[in-house]
Amino acid sequence: MSEIVEELLAKAKKPAEDALALHPYYRGKVQTAAKCPVRGLDDFAIWYTPGVAAPCREIHKNPDLAYEYTNKGNTVAVVSDGTRVLGLGDIGPLAGLPVMEGKALLFKYLGGVDAVPICLDTKDPYRLILAVKWIQPSFGGINLEDIEQPKCFRVLDMLRSDPEVQIPVWHDDQQGTATVTLAGVINALKVVGKRMDEIKVSIIGVGAASVATIRLLVASGVPSGNIIACDSHGILHPGREDVARRKIEFVDKWRICQQSNAEGRVGGPAEAMRGTDVCIALSKPGPGTILPEWVAAMAEDAIVFACANPIPEIWPWEAKQAGARVVGTGRSDFPNQINNSLGFPGIFRGVLDVRATTITDEMAIAAAEELARCAEEKGLDEEYILPTMEDWEVFPREAAAVGVKAQEQEVARLSLSREELLTRATDIIRQAREMTHFLMEKRIIPPVPAGM
Amino acid sequence: MSEIVEELLAKAKKPAEDALALHPYYRGKVQTAAKCPVRGLDDFAIWYTPGVAAPCREIHKNPDLAYEYTNKGNTVAVVSDGTRVLGLGDIGPLAGLPVMEGKALLFKYLGGVDAVPICLDTKDPYRLILAVKWIQPSFGGINLEDIEQPKCFRVLDMLRSDPEVQIPVWHDDQQGTATVTLAGVINALKVVGKRMDEIKVSIIGVGAASVATIRLLVASGVPSGNIIACDSHGILHPGREDVARRKIEFVDKWRICQQSNAEGRVGGPAEAMRGTDVCIALSKPGPGTILPEWVAAMAEDAIVFACANPIPEIWPWEAKQAGARVVGTGRSDFPNQINNSLGFPGIFRGVLDVRATTITDEMAIAAAEELARCAEEKGLDEEYILPTMEDWEVFPREAAAVGVKAQEQEVARLSLSREELLTRATDIIRQAREMTHFLMEKRIIPPVPAGM
Repeated sequence: MSEIVEELLAKAKKPAEDALALHPYYRGKVQTAAKCPVRGLDDFAIWYTPGVAAPCREIHKNPDLAYEYTNKGNTVAVVSDGTRVLGLGDIGPLAGLPVMEGKALLFKYLGGVDAVPICLDTKDPYRLILAVKWIQPSFGGINLEDIEQPKCFRVLDMLRSDPEVQIPVWHDDQQGTATVTLAGVINALKVVGKRMDEIKVSIIGVGAASVATIRLLVASGVPSGNIIACDSHGILHPGREDVARRKIEFVDKWRICQQSNAEGRVGGPAEAMRGTDVCIALSKPGPGTILPEWVAAMAEDAIVFACANPIPEIWPWEAKQAGARVVGTGRSDFPNQINNSLGFPGIFRGVLDVRATTITDEMAIAAAEELARCAEEKGLDEEYILPTMEDWEVFPREAAAVGVKAQEQEVARLSLSREELLTRATDIIRQAREMTHFLMEKRIIPPVPAGM
Repeated sequence: MSEIVEELLAKAKKPAEDALALHPYYRGKVQTAAKCPVRGLDDFAIWYTPGVAAPCREIHKNPDLAYEYTNKGNTVAVVSDGTRVLGLGDIGPLAGLPVMEGKALLFKYLGGVDAVPICLDTKDPYRLILAVKWIQPSFGGINLEDIEQPKCFRVLDMLRSDPEVQIPVWHDDQQGTATVTLAGVINALKVVGKRMDEIKVSIIGVGAASVATIRLLVASGVPSGNIIACDSHGILHPGREDVARRKIEFVDKWRICQQSNAEGRVGGPAEAMRGTDVCIALSKPGPGTILPEWVAAMAEDAIVFACANPIPEIWPWEAKQAGARVVGTGRSDFPNQINNSLGFPGIFRGVLDVRATTITDEMAIAAAEELARCAEEKGLDEEYILPTMEDWEVFPREAAAVGVKAQEQEVARLSLSREELLTRATDIIRQAREMTHFLMEKRIIPPVPAGM
């Protein structure tokens, strides 16, 4: 096996090498483009002074018109303080900028959403909240990104519950990861023929993504007592004094301590995984974080998602050899990639298209279910439980599902049918892709130089 | 004359009508575009995770690499609190958004600068300062816009003098207006054959733009005692108790009280203008704010800039009839438009291209002198003292002049010759225009519908 591992590790270096060569060549991944025509310089009298005063006056009279007269309704701020960038930790807002720019590129290309990187030079949660509140006039939504826990929970919760925040706020590391993971669980269960309400689920690593994943699993029918979560100090249970002491900060984790693990298990990951049907690992890169014998001790037809990047907690073939039937990872070069990028572009597309005021868990679940359906329609098997980004109809379909759910839950400010939403999202996303291709064709985006 | 006036007023309505029809059709004036190629979805492994981790790590080690690896170095935030939007006053940040989007469009089209509207939902000057400081990792420069006085002075001064602010901060309503006005004065004086160091200048209206204009005029050779400034309470002089009482807030205005008006004039605008060679009005829309008999009482070969929008303080033909030899306004439908848009795109282009840490008054003066030279080379006369936006070589030339001056003053972090700067700015700006035209040609920006 070591040859395969060597090859994989070498392959994993390729994107890093390419990134180091190409980032300085392009000096950025997103830029500003005109959205309106400039037929001649006289047009500036319409788009700028003096003509622009008229739409300003109208918005002053009726603030909702900002959505009609500006790009606010299609613009999302990708906000980070750089305290937990990828697996790199607290590298700061400036060093996090390449990630936020990359995210903005994906937002546009996959979702037709105009996203702007806003890297904030403060780590204080209340200042993060203030910053988001102050910048909100320019934006139709906020995507929080790469903010460390437990701060990220408080920041998200306070922003979502603040009546002064009138635009939806999403933390992709929590909600986005949970949404795509849920979609994977839904389909993996179909493959193995089990039901949400009868499975036991072990969760290895209890960071922001795991907390949100547990919440969505429970909302989707997994009995909360059937979840056994395990962090670096062991299985969560009501006697975990270290969590109890910080229960204000770690309010969700403390809730998990109290509501999960009905059997009262204590111990480490081996004990957490024993007999469970599904194991979701969102912990530290392996291999070796999860041992094959722990997988072997899971229930029959076990499902293992080993999502650490770039190296999963256990290699897929090891998990399979140990008896797992369906294995997912965070990597695109193995089957069943649990990939955040399958979520946020379509979800925000739908949120913006109905002008939703918030993004509820039910909307995330609707996105997960639609994502699952997309793969199911193509024919599920052990190696195909989730669509890939190539299946680009996924994004408009998610958008429509999210938009419909927002209307059902009365958090949408526009009323559109599923068909209208699907058509609109399809058009917008197609145009975003065409735009990128035209810019390449016309060499406004120059080609990658030979040899790079 | 009333027919001409009727016609002009009717004409002034046209951009407003077009703006109201076209703003909701386009729903925004700027959007996000890819700056790097997307050959296939595999490229996302370079631009986003896992590849992006490598440039993040490098920036963490050496923060200057953010300028190489991201679009920071070409991105400017257009920051406003909406307290003094155009002539509309305090209409708030949301209603100000169409102006900031328009400004971003001009930044790109005329200067090749990627600008992002950031409308802030706070009016407190210290919070504005904090917001700018917090968002600075994403940006290479800050353009403050439409912030009321006296707050705008404090915000600009504090940001410019704060050692934690490492990117240039510019308040276009002050510095940009002053730069273009200075260029107009330089050339108008050539037309009438007078010299900076011998003229008397009356200033009508003492807002943010006038204060900066006075500063640049004095730095360009006008004796400060020869300036007579007049606000709505009359001519400024050391006995102005209303200003003295607020001299902390109005520190610059108080300095003008003390240093200008060597003759010790008191009275209103008539007395301020009497015998002066140049009158610069940046006050309230007319006509009637300036009376013809006041112009008649100016020195021979008088120069009058009546810059209020949309209606100048005095109609150009009235000023001419009263004896003015050169007349400028803020309008594009009269000769000699004193137009801010001639300044900021080229100035920021130069600032970004040498990675300047600040924008000094000397850099603004260098831009004004280059702007003046551009018009001079085409042949000055009473009806042509400034280039128009059609003369698009103006912008790269200003950029080169600003970049050279920044290096002379040792506020530039890159070293480039005038020729290199000119070539680079020309290429970047040409490409920004081509990009807009391609997007129109490919109907990513749809054509204006017939009848609109």
